[in-house]
Amino acid sequence: MEHKFVYFFGGGKAEGSRDMKDILGGKGAGLAEMTNVGLPVPPGFTISTQACNAYVANCGKLPPEIDQEIGVNLKKLEELTGQTLGSAENPLLVSVRSGAKFSMPGMMDTILNLGLNDVTLETLAKKTGNRRFALDCYRRFIQMFGNVVLGIEKDKFEHKLTGIKASKKVKTDSELRDTDLQELIALYQDVVKEQTGSDFPQDTHQQLAMARDAVFKSWNNPRAATYRKLNNIPHDLGTAVNIQLMVFGNMGDTSATGVGFTRNPASGAKEFYGEFLTNAQGEDVVAGIRTPMPIVKLNDVMPAAYVELRQITDKLERHYKDVQDFEFTIQESKLYMLQTRNGKRTGFAAIRFAIDLVREGICTKEEAIGTIDPASLNQLLHPIFDPAVRGKYKSVAKGLAASPGAATGKLVFTADEAVVWSEKKKEKVLLVRAETCPDDIHGMSVAQGVLTATGGMTSHAAVVGRQMGKPSVVGCGALKIDEKAGKMTIGGKTVKKGDWISIDGTTGEVVLAKIPTAPSEILQVINGKKKREDSELALAFFEVLSWCDDIRRLKVRANADIPHDAKIAFAFGAQGIGLCRTEHMFFAEDRLPLVQKMILADDPQERAEAIAQLLPLQREDFYGLFKEMHGNPVTIRTLDPPLHEFLPKREELMVKIATLKAKDPKKNKPKIEKLQALLRRVEDLHEFNPMLGHRGCRLGITYPELTEMQARAIFEAACRVAKEGGKVVPEIMIPLVAHVNEFTAQREVVLRAAKETMEREGCQLEFTIGTMIELPRACVVADKIAKDAEFFSFGTNDLTQTTYGFSRDDVGKILAYYLSDKHKILDRDPFESIDEEGVGALVRMGVQKGRSTRPNLKIGVCGEHGGDAASVHFFHKVGLDYVSASPYRVAIARLAAAQAVLDEKKAKMGD
Amino acid sequence: MEHKFVYFFGGGKAEGSRDMKDILGGKGAGLAEMTNVGLPVPPGFTISTQACNAYVANCGKLPPEIDQEIGVNLKKLEELTGQTLGSAENPLLVSVRSGAKFSMPGMMDTILNLGLNDVTLETLAKKTGNRRFALDCYRRFIQMFGNVVLGIEKDKFEHKLTGIKASKKVKTDSELRDTDLQELIALYQDVVKEQTGSDFPQDTHQQLAMARDAVFKSWNNPRAATYRKLNNIPHDLGTAVNIQLMVFGNMGDTSATGVGFTRNPASGAKEFYGEFLTNAQGEDVVAGIRTPMPIVKLNDVMPAAYVELRQITDKLERHYKDVQDFEFTIQESKLYMLQTRNGKRTGFAAIRFAIDLVREGICTKEEAIGTIDPASLNQLLHPIFDPAVRGKYKSVAKGLAASPGAATGKLVFTADEAVVWSEKKKEKVLLVRAETCPDDIHGMSVAQGVLTATGGMTSHAAVVGRQMGKPSVVGCGALKIDEKAGKMTIGGKTVKKGDWISIDGTTGEVVLAKIPTAPSEILQVINGKKKREDSELALAFFEVLSWCDDIRRLKVRANADIPHDAKIAFAFGAQGIGLCRTEHMFFAEDRLPLVQKMILADDPQERAEAIAQLLPLQREDFYGLFKEMHGNPVTIRTLDPPLHEFLPKREELMVKIATLKAKDPKKNKPKIEKLQALLRRVEDLHEFNPMLGHRGCRLGITYPELTEMQARAIFEAACRVAKEGGKVVPEIMIPLVAHVNEFTAQREVVLRAAKETMEREGCQLEFTIGTMIELPRACVVADKIAKDAEFFSFGTNDLTQTTYGFSRDDVGKILAYYLSDKHKILDRDPFESIDEEGVGALVRMGVQKGRSTRPNLKIGVCGEHGGDAASVHFFHKVGLDYVSASPYRVAIARLAAAQAVLDEKKAKMGD
Repeated sequence: MEHKFVYFFGGGKAEGSRDMKDILGGKGAGLAEMTNVGLPVPPGFTISTQACNAYVANCGKLPPEIDQEIGVNLKKLEELTGQTLGSAENPLLVSVRSGAKFSMPGMMDTILNLGLNDVTLETLAKKTGNRRFALDCYRRFIQMFGNVVLGIEKDKFEHKLTGIKASKKVKTDSELRDTDLQELIALYQDVVKEQTGSDFPQDTHQQLAMARDAVFKSWNNPRAATYRKLNNIPHDLGTAVNIQLMVFGNMGDTSATGVGFTRNPASGAKEFYGEFLTNAQGEDVVAGIRTPMPIVKLNDVMPAAYVELRQITDKLERHYKDVQDFEFTIQESKLYMLQTRNGKRTGFAAIRFAIDLVREGICTKEEAIGTIDPASLNQLLHPIFDPAVRGKYKSVAKGLAASPGAATGKLVFTADEAVVWSEKKKEKVLLVRAETCPDDIHGMSVAQGVLTATGGMTSHAAVVGRQMGKPSVVGCGALKIDEKAGKMTIGGKTVKKGDWISIDGTTGEVVLAKIPTAPSEILQVINGKKKREDSELALAFFEVLSWCDDIRRLKVRANADIPHDAKIAFAFGAQGIGLCRTEHMFFAEDRLPLVQKMILADDPQERAEAIAQLLPLQREDFYGLFKEMHGNPVTIRTLDPPLHEFLPKREELMVKIATLKAKDPKKNKPKIEKLQALLRRVEDLHEFNPMLGHRGCRLGITYPELTEMQARAIFEAACRVAKEGGKVVPEIMIPLVAHVNEFTAQREVVLRAAKETMEREGCQLEFTIGTMIELPRACVVADKIAKDAEFFSFGTNDLTQTTYGFSRDDVGKILAYYLSDKHKILDRDPFESIDEEGVGALVRMGVQKGRSTRPNLKIGVCGEHGGDAASVHFFHKVGLDYVSASPYRVAIARLAAAQAVLDEKKAKMGD
Repeated sequence: MEHKFVYFFGGGKAEGSRDMKDILGGKGAGLAEMTNVGLPVPPGFTISTQACNAYVANCGKLPPEIDQEIGVNLKKLEELTGQTLGSAENPLLVSVRSGAKFSMPGMMDTILNLGLNDVTLETLAKKTGNRRFALDCYRRFIQMFGNVVLGIEKDKFEHKLTGIKASKKVKTDSELRDTDLQELIALYQDVVKEQTGSDFPQDTHQQLAMARDAVFKSWNNPRAATYRKLNNIPHDLGTAVNIQLMVFGNMGDTSATGVGFTRNPASGAKEFYGEFLTNAQGEDVVAGIRTPMPIVKLNDVMPAAYVELRQITDKLERHYKDVQDFEFTIQESKLYMLQTRNGKRTGFAAIRFAIDLVREGICTKEEAIGTIDPASLNQLLHPIFDPAVRGKYKSVAKGLAASPGAATGKLVFTADEAVVWSEKKKEKVLLVRAETCPDDIHGMSVAQGVLTATGGMTSHAAVVGRQMGKPSVVGCGALKIDEKAGKMTIGGKTVKKGDWISIDGTTGEVVLAKIPTAPSEILQVINGKKKREDSELALAFFEVLSWCDDIRRLKVRANADIPHDAKIAFAFGAQGIGLCRTEHMFFAEDRLPLVQKMILADDPQERAEAIAQLLPLQREDFYGLFKEMHGNPVTIRTLDPPLHEFLPKREELMVKIATLKAKDPKKNKPKIEKLQALLRRVEDLHEFNPMLGHRGCRLGITYPELTEMQARAIFEAACRVAKEGGKVVPEIMIPLVAHVNEFTAQREVVLRAAKETMEREGCQLEFTIGTMIELPRACVVADKIAKDAEFFSFGTNDLTQTTYGFSRDDVGKILAYYLSDKHKILDRDPFESIDEEGVGALVRMGVQKGRSTRPNLKIGVCGEHGGDAASVHFFHKVGLDYVSASPYRVAIARLAAAQAVLDEKKAKMGD
């Protein structure tokens, strides 16, 4: 079969379908599906993402066979509509829109009204009997085409528009007369000539080809690239191009255009949600230039169209089994659907949608789970304004609650300022803009929250805010910004750049102060400050997570070092502790002196005494952990960090000594000598690369008394729990093993301590001894290590460090460079999401080799990756038994683990 | 077939042969072979190394079936000799000797005269008519058995012997009367009772079983373990036990015992070499208690035996095609051979042997190559005393030239002192002992050289000195040591601990001074100070290496950073430069300020200027390298180390600032501010783990102008050579690549610079761009990297660091601990010899993956391992194209590469 690059839709049927997002993009698949379902969709065709890749591969030239295929489909469209592109008699006008597999609102460029030129303009005016409409279409087209295709700055056109409005002494576009518009068109065409050296193209076929190529090119523009990186979308997917018959929302008062959601994507409430503008074209709504009307008002203006829209969107929700985000246009009272897709949502909405859709029988629990972005659950844990003090702060204004959450920061007016203040000055900032546009994304992503003066619930600021989980209040009309002067007025008050401001994205309120925050509702429930049954959100949250538990195979544990963390982890549903870092107990104020005494000991006797004093403290810690985990397994890692971490810093001591010496060496002699003695010991322990130095099991091997003490503390605590009738499953984990002999040596120490303690306590316990797999060598010789090790836990933080040769403490600057659009050496931060190709291959090797020796080897992961959804998918695939995440990421891991199973099922069905 | 654990020899034939060293050990195989060849060997049987392993595996108990098999062979021996173990009428006496595959002189414990008890003593006395002899045998037996089997300190027995000599007022053992010996035996038996709580065992079968087990146990004693580690002998080989009919060298003046070499193992001269003692048992010769007589004197004492010995040993040398180290005993004028094996030799001797044996038609070139230990070639490069000034220093005494080379150090009298002084005080020491014993090995290994008062050319000090390649002078009778007082007298002078002393192991001279040294003869030839044809040694050395070149498949290159090093490398036979570290050129005094200027530059312009100034300097370096390599390939690595290495140390700046501030902050203000500015930049560059930080290609990626400058310098230099008519093959190597995109980005910079430079110079050159594979990730994704990379060079230093998580700068202390006998976590230092199991597996993966993409990918190694023989074998096995070693290790690599081929052939023939 010949390869197909173009897919037609129209006349009640389409060549594509919803399942072809890879090829048609989200928008194209939606148009095809809606066409097939019989909805009113203007006909057209989709040029596939593969054509985009062919275009890129062919050095920015579309291969001729694809061009030809487009011609055939254009012909078909012309035949169906009875119109012809460029015809002076009956011209075809089309829109050209991008549409990748994953939607990128505001990111890709759209061109409307293509097919207009100086000739067809007149035909359109004549045929519609609406010259003003035709002129409006043409000036919009020149502006969009000039900006998007020819790369002319928007300002160049806006400047002309502003100029003409000033010279005509009118305020709004709609006050301009036909002749003014005619004049404006001429000015626009001058701009094009001036900026490009060529006339605005009158050849409509050339227009189409140029617009199409512009879409392909825009795939690689920096804005799109940033978006993809923020959302972890691969750079090689490509975008499709949709060429579709124009319908006009700007044909007068019986025409309109709008966007909406079947439910509230911010709060999750079951309410028809969105906005429309009469006598307007699509981009007016999203751009936020005119504040649009709430969608329910459409019922007042065009009731028939409203009812039809409700019916259609309800049908779409049931059809897609998910909340829909749709676009429509009403042309002279006739409704057309231009797009539908699963709606982006906040974490709050995601949970509520899942619960409601299942209750309403729209989808199954499994399908509902698939609609939730695991990372969005973090939003449910973001702080809220402290209810205890909230009353003290008066709101000065209220906008639309576009994205929930509390945000406080210093006021900045531009995205660049936001970046500079937050990154260089380490300030928390809140970004205030008249409206936001894609150029502001870098600023939005570093700001605590976003506040805009114009724009509705589907404006750029609202959409992106929700996606980023960033508190946003939009359309706050009370706001008057003077960006140049660096100040604004709101509610009668003037504030300037750098002043504190707070917004509540859940209520839309704006406060001119720094309001103290409190833990989120979910955290209040977790902490026992609020009863679960009193919180609808918590009930929903935990219900959805319980569905996940029925599906997932991976167990989820938490990394917790102290009983308090264990308690939180357990409340979040952790099925055990995957990593207790015993050293964290050593840093406590009352213990550090003992630890220092141990390190600085001159002889074994003195060291033994210090260690003996640490034992009861560690025992209490372990006892607390065991109790909080209620019989679930608890993995305790023996001491890991280099000892110098517990001592004063070398250079600080040097400076102190130098200062004392310079001031009065005689008087300060005793002090100096004492410090010098300390410095000598610090120097003894000093390392050039502590990450690769005397740490991990190397500590326990050189100071077996330390491991022994820790093992004794563990078993004494465990015996105590057991004697009290509790269940307890200690798992002792040896860190940083490179060679099996290291493990064996430490295992012997632990076994001996276990035996002695249990004999002394008269108490027999089940326990296991295993190891971290966190060095490349451990992966390579995992078969040997598994001979004695009863479990493995991949320490993917350290494994990433050594596999990449990246010190996590040092490569921040390099990684920023590597991840930047300009260099794109790496797609993702390997410390955030596991590097499947490199580190992942070693994990896979470790699993296979380990199980080759010990088929029932229990294997988990306890690096930061345990709380990253993509990584959890990978760990599921390679067959781990559990992931261990930070307590606050347990929910994400539970959800991601369930989604991994669902994805696996889907993939199998696809086979 | 039933598994066989015991092998008989005697009566003209043996069950074993020379090829069974694995099973019989070296000694057992030698005894079997000599028996088969028809030489006079006392009959006996060998218990195999597998029995040793079975003993160890069975928790220190010999499985009964092996015990039974021993019984059968003992019976056979009794039948052959007509004697019976423990018989009061005709008692069988045997020796029990260990014998592993690789001989460990002085390491393993030997028991003679086993079978004696209070009853058989009397029979022996009666049968030999020599009561004194019988008593001497019995007291020796009790002492050896007490020490070796029962673990009683030698001193306990020596003390009794000294006591009785004192009480009898005699000086030597031979002055003791029969009754004195009888008394001594009773005292010895008391010692045994006192120390073990049991009587000395009278049951001769029990004696045999205990002695046998003691040999097995001794396999794991610390001395043996140290030796194995020093000589890289695996710990799991096990030792065999040889039970052999006793023959007696202590039956009077027609009896003797001796050891020897068929040629001089120190110098390589063709001379019969060794020592003997009349009326003595074997251990007396080696232990150095009595200074033995040179072996040629045997011709005077027992001419018939001497002639027979010459004939037999000549035959053995031809039979084994190598110089033999043999042991013999003459019992009442009858010669018995007790052992033969290939002799250990110094590097000097190894070369000379090879040349002579081939010339004499005793072996082929290939066989001769197999006899040289590659590491021993280092000895040929050790400094000698500077001939220009040697005459100014007078020798105070002369001993035996036991191991060649010049050594100067501070005088120490004990092994422990040697270790403390050399490791803690960082002093060079020279160890002086009356005699050395295995307990002294740790001291010998850190000393510059060893001088002993007693002992001959085959004494412990001599043998071990030669093995270690450590200059040694032994048997220096002029030496009187007062260890307790920490002084000694020699040639009428008294010197004390810590005084300088020099020895010349080539001449045997001792000088009481620190003598300046000069390069070795080989190095003088290499440096052009001496003509090759004037040096017999150099001629032999390079002839042997040329044989290697005909055999080896691996190419050998050198790591050289400056033209001078390249010149030396080329003289040693390097076939190219495998690694030029360009940063080493930056540390030169005239360049460092420019490098610092570049790093501290405030703006790109300033940086560009500094870089531009570096370019001509780098170009000159490269030009020199290309010239010195005469058209061989030169691999140049782009800048690798973190930039802060070129700046002042952070803590030093901090101390300076603190001192200035404390002293007079006002006056010092300008200075302080300048230093603070510098410190800020140093802080910017400061890293917690620089090994895993901003270095390698990460530098070149963030500062592409640096890579570009280096590439331009390379191609400008190469063009100049080409224009001068020279051949030049530049290979540009990108360091520390973890991800293919890093390589690709740097490759583009280099390619662009290459193109521009060659166009400008009007000169087309062949060149390649490749990468270091020195991170685990690079091995894992080698298939991807090989798409663009034209060659790989494994940087096994860094690869070992990241695979193990060992910072080479920091883990010295840990490694010492890990390698120590007590802990034995690791068998070998992975930085010295490649860790085949871990790092090696990644190298193998890298090779396979790289070649899967690019079958003709050129692959080398440029870590320190390139100069380690065992590692070279591994690199040959995994199919690398070349190894690159330090210039001074090129010869070792050439030899090892040839041996790898020979080993491979042998292994194939074995299949």
